[in-house]
Amino acid sequence: MNTIVSVPKVPAKRPFNRLSPVPLKAVALSDSFWAPRQQVNRDVTLPSQYEQCETTGRVDNFRRVSGRKECEFSGIFFNDSDIYKLLEAIAYSLPGEAKLSAMADALIDEVGAAQDANGYLNTYFSLERKGDRWTNLKDMHELYCAGHLIEAAVAHFDATGSTSILDVARRLADHICDTFGPVADGKREGACGHEEVVLALMSLYRATGEARYLEQARYFIAAHGATPSAMYWPSTSAPWWDFNRRYHQDHVKFEDLHDVVGHAVRMMYYACGAADVYAETGDARWLAALKAQWSNMTERRMYLTGGLGARWEGEAFGDDWELPERAYAETCAAIGSIMWNKRMLQVDGDSRYADLMELQLYNAMLAGLSLSGDQYFYQNPLADGGTHRRQAWFGCACCPPNIARLLGSLGGYFYSVDQEAVWVHLFAQGVARFEMDGGAVELRQSTNYPWDGDIRIEIVEAPASMKALQIRIPAWAKGATVQVNDRPAEDVAVGSYACVQGVGAGDAVRVHLPMEVRMVTADPRVFATAGKVSLMRGPMVYCIEQADFPAGVDVRDVALSPAAKVDARFEQETLAGIVALRTSGKVIDRSAWDGALYRDGGSVSYAAANVDVVAIPFYAWANREAGPMTVWIHAT
Amino acid sequence: MNTIVSVPKVPAKRPFNRLSPVPLKAVALSDSFWAPRQQVNRDVTLPSQYEQCETTGRVDNFRRVSGRKECEFSGIFFNDSDIYKLLEAIAYSLPGEAKLSAMADALIDEVGAAQDANGYLNTYFSLERKGDRWTNLKDMHELYCAGHLIEAAVAHFDATGSTSILDVARRLADHICDTFGPVADGKREGACGHEEVVLALMSLYRATGEARYLEQARYFIAAHGATPSAMYWPSTSAPWWDFNRRYHQDHVKFEDLHDVVGHAVRMMYYACGAADVYAETGDARWLAALKAQWSNMTERRMYLTGGLGARWEGEAFGDDWELPERAYAETCAAIGSIMWNKRMLQVDGDSRYADLMELQLYNAMLAGLSLSGDQYFYQNPLADGGTHRRQAWFGCACCPPNIARLLGSLGGYFYSVDQEAVWVHLFAQGVARFEMDGGAVELRQSTNYPWDGDIRIEIVEAPASMKALQIRIPAWAKGATVQVNDRPAEDVAVGSYACVQGVGAGDAVRVHLPMEVRMVTADPRVFATAGKVSLMRGPMVYCIEQADFPAGVDVRDVALSPAAKVDARFEQETLAGIVALRTSGKVIDRSAWDGALYRDGGSVSYAAANVDVVAIPFYAWANREAGPMTVWIHAT
Repeated sequence: MNTIVSVPKVPAKRPFNRLSPVPLKAVALSDSFWAPRQQVNRDVTLPSQYEQCETTGRVDNFRRVSGRKECEFSGIFFNDSDIYKLLEAIAYSLPGEAKLSAMADALIDEVGAAQDANGYLNTYFSLERKGDRWTNLKDMHELYCAGHLIEAAVAHFDATGSTSILDVARRLADHICDTFGPVADGKREGACGHEEVVLALMSLYRATGEARYLEQARYFIAAHGATPSAMYWPSTSAPWWDFNRRYHQDHVKFEDLHDVVGHAVRMMYYACGAADVYAETGDARWLAALKAQWSNMTERRMYLTGGLGARWEGEAFGDDWELPERAYAETCAAIGSIMWNKRMLQVDGDSRYADLMELQLYNAMLAGLSLSGDQYFYQNPLADGGTHRRQAWFGCACCPPNIARLLGSLGGYFYSVDQEAVWVHLFAQGVARFEMDGGAVELRQSTNYPWDGDIRIEIVEAPASMKALQIRIPAWAKGATVQVNDRPAEDVAVGSYACVQGVGAGDAVRVHLPMEVRMVTADPRVFATAGKVSLMRGPMVYCIEQADFPAGVDVRDVALSPAAKVDARFEQETLAGIVALRTSGKVIDRSAWDGALYRDGGSVSYAAANVDVVAIPFYAWANREAGPMTVWIHAT
Repeated sequence: MNTIVSVPKVPAKRPFNRLSPVPLKAVALSDSFWAPRQQVNRDVTLPSQYEQCETTGRVDNFRRVSGRKECEFSGIFFNDSDIYKLLEAIAYSLPGEAKLSAMADALIDEVGAAQDANGYLNTYFSLERKGDRWTNLKDMHELYCAGHLIEAAVAHFDATGSTSILDVARRLADHICDTFGPVADGKREGACGHEEVVLALMSLYRATGEARYLEQARYFIAAHGATPSAMYWPSTSAPWWDFNRRYHQDHVKFEDLHDVVGHAVRMMYYACGAADVYAETGDARWLAALKAQWSNMTERRMYLTGGLGARWEGEAFGDDWELPERAYAETCAAIGSIMWNKRMLQVDGDSRYADLMELQLYNAMLAGLSLSGDQYFYQNPLADGGTHRRQAWFGCACCPPNIARLLGSLGGYFYSVDQEAVWVHLFAQGVARFEMDGGAVELRQSTNYPWDGDIRIEIVEAPASMKALQIRIPAWAKGATVQVNDRPAEDVAVGSYACVQGVGAGDAVRVHLPMEVRMVTADPRVFATAGKVSLMRGPMVYCIEQADFPAGVDVRDVALSPAAKVDARFEQETLAGIVALRTSGKVIDRSAWDGALYRDGGSVSYAAANVDVVAIPFYAWANREAGPMTVWIHAT
């Protein structure tokens, strides 16, 4: 397990938020689900990504600019961002890890050496391409890369107290602030086509207290939707293919954006940045827009897994109810949503944000990583014929280090505080120690979550000012109960936080979240899911994979009765330990369509023999032999 | 109606084909379906496209190169092709059309004036971009544009006998032949990333008899699948994003390509070219590949409408059974398939090719054009929320002139001959007059097809050597009958040609194709269609459109009983005259999902009141107020 090396203070609440998140350093997980994954992250994922960044020339791109190596720029123009995300991921995983610490120092050294005297830093737009700097903010990712450098720097500073990379990031951020802004201020108008930089500037603002970073973040969001677009320089230089400003969320102002549109990752980062700015400025129009976007996403444009982005072209959100089985559902988009929902959760403590965060952690995000920790999905379809497999790396390698940084920073998603309560958002065995207003807190969770819904939360230490625990009761947990020192708590409602009052040091709270298997159906307007059901248990979405079925049965022909009895049992030896679901199903007799895609008539009939159906958690698929998989299963 | 101005001779059969197509000039349609559309094509479509080409700078690009106008190149780098396709479309529609003839002459004059002394002709790669010629055959469409010029030239020559544009095309073709070929011949290896040029060279070969064009066409196909790719010059200059050679069908040799992959239009043109070359060379491996591709397409990768291309990204074929409702189904891909199927049909007279040609004519292709004749679909989804509407033009305007040239050349798809029979592939009222071996033939079709399945074919004139009519009996026409002078013909089987022997001048054949409404289902592995049915009648696919339903009923919630009785009735006043289908259906009660995309449980229930269901031909949708539409309808 990771350990708590110091007892951090929970940062002050932002002016317009209700809650303040308990920092990463305060939380140590010792569960059998996340803690081993964090160990694999440190032992396998991060070292192998470091190696990939070396062998693919990503580090050499910095050496080229600093003059330490003679070589051509290699790879994609935004490859710098992979180095930064990796550095950020390493930073989250640092305490007590000498090898990782050495990697971080090596990367910081290479990055810092490549910075221009004026603070500019981007290895693609250096040397012979220096003249093209800042001309195409829409497509060329300069501000995006800068944002990831800033995030990495803040993470490294938080983890180590060292300003070695923070100083580099601040010089770049200052250069950006000097360059972009209202023409009236003697600057150039600008807006970023991949809005990562906004949330990064907000992190930098919170880390340094420098108000100019907040102002720059607010400016960058407000610059969207300008006519002409602020994303090109000069603004009239937009190329012929720039017909779709929705792709970059540049077609309207933020306050007028009431749905989730365009590139899904950009949309999520954009919303993160806006939520961060809202927390400081309290612009009600922005909050209304954020809530409208969230409703549109969750009620009309999100996969059951929490996957985001129906469309492969543009890696983008689709229209309402456009959710084909071959989802794009980029791993990074789910991660961006988890980040956004953490921010929304601090605004008002609405448990729906934490429910979604949890759904995406266990499903849309986690499917992106192999059990071995060194293979990745970029896209996460909800059905496949057996050709979609995880890869060791990508030309555009945004997802791998994004998964690594999320796993590394997972502890920071578990708890928040307000003036008088600790809020428990996520469940996993482990301990949290931190200072809140009034004094030190220590909480211990004992549970086998997510496989089991019984959670014991022990308040080891708490100040007198702490008067309550706010415990999330997920919307799926029908029949949930909470007991305080063996007394039942009142007002336990699913889809809300159970406010357990009058507790203090020495008290223990028992939460029971029933883990019934649920058969789920989708809005009939979704074509790919009509006439189909899906299996869920707790926060986990299940799928059926060919590896569990006889060769003659294609999982896409399996049909379940909505009334089928489904058994759930933990299997230690299967897929690193899962609760597998087992039931009996029918198999569609497809012979009527042999050699034909369409036929006249043809109501469905079934083979005489039933089939044993095994369902596994969606995140665990594609870790065995290749074959068809589907989340949605025909209903008889 | 268009008229037959001369009685053309059917060209000699190609060596490895069974049939030879009766040329366009031999066929005049006077029906109420196609003939009015051809009139709209001449009166509205072609003039408005000519105007678009002028106002969007497409003609100016030629004037710029010829020095007739000072201006920048405007639009996309392959805009020349739109001019060529428009010229081809005009050529097919010329006889007796003075205004169109003047347009053709004007275009020919502009095009010819822009040609280089060495024969090269492409307005993008001229003047300041001359140095980049022929460096990127994969993406930059130089050979594609050349192909469309050649096709236009042959069409214009066929229509007028003038070589004004044919001479231009031959100079360019000769330049291409001089440039690309085996290194051993002192040439540069080359393969075209958009294989249009291959079928064009084959047209030029047949028009001129010059064997070098055949050899060049064969070479271009054989150059696919080389290592390194023959599509870049130098071959090592492929950029970082060139990871997917399947997109351009460049990952294997043609004989090893046994499925339809990559960009759908390219795939279709590629197959057209290979079929053309096969007809001359008889390479059995190529024929086997063509048949495997065709089977893969029709059995696993084609929409019910005949639409091709499941994927928006790459405008590409998807995997097997990957057919989401938001089809790409580019209009051009359907047209390419119609062209390919015409070629396959000549190889062996298999009626399946003609069935598909007909399906795509009435559905996948025709939906691309508004009833008004001046609005176009690029993509043809099988369901929509109401936002997908036809447009007057596109930045990439490949589809509009492609529709125009297909409508103009439609007569050329109706008949073929072999030594002793005339083959009737398509049905529409009209007359055909041509010379086959042995003498003149005149056939008259009297019918109200496609609304009615009774067709009378009168043999007005025929040589003694003509011993039979081969009449296509579509696979859908269960119960079809054929009568010769009121005697029933034997051996009438659906999905084949009925060989009516012993007929000659003065005989009349009556064909009865039952037009029962069929409820169709798809292979259960197709997610978007599971649990759904679609309505067809004759060759026509139907859809339900919001304009025919009350405001409170979303067509995507309508459900039909597989046993529902469906009435079919011709309605002259509806959508320029259609057979509408009427029945009664149920409406899914969606209230259980209000505000939620997914719910636990939730088998489908229906509103108490039934709804009157009106279905219209798919091609006719989006000609009224915008609203949801779907081809696939829930089955109760």
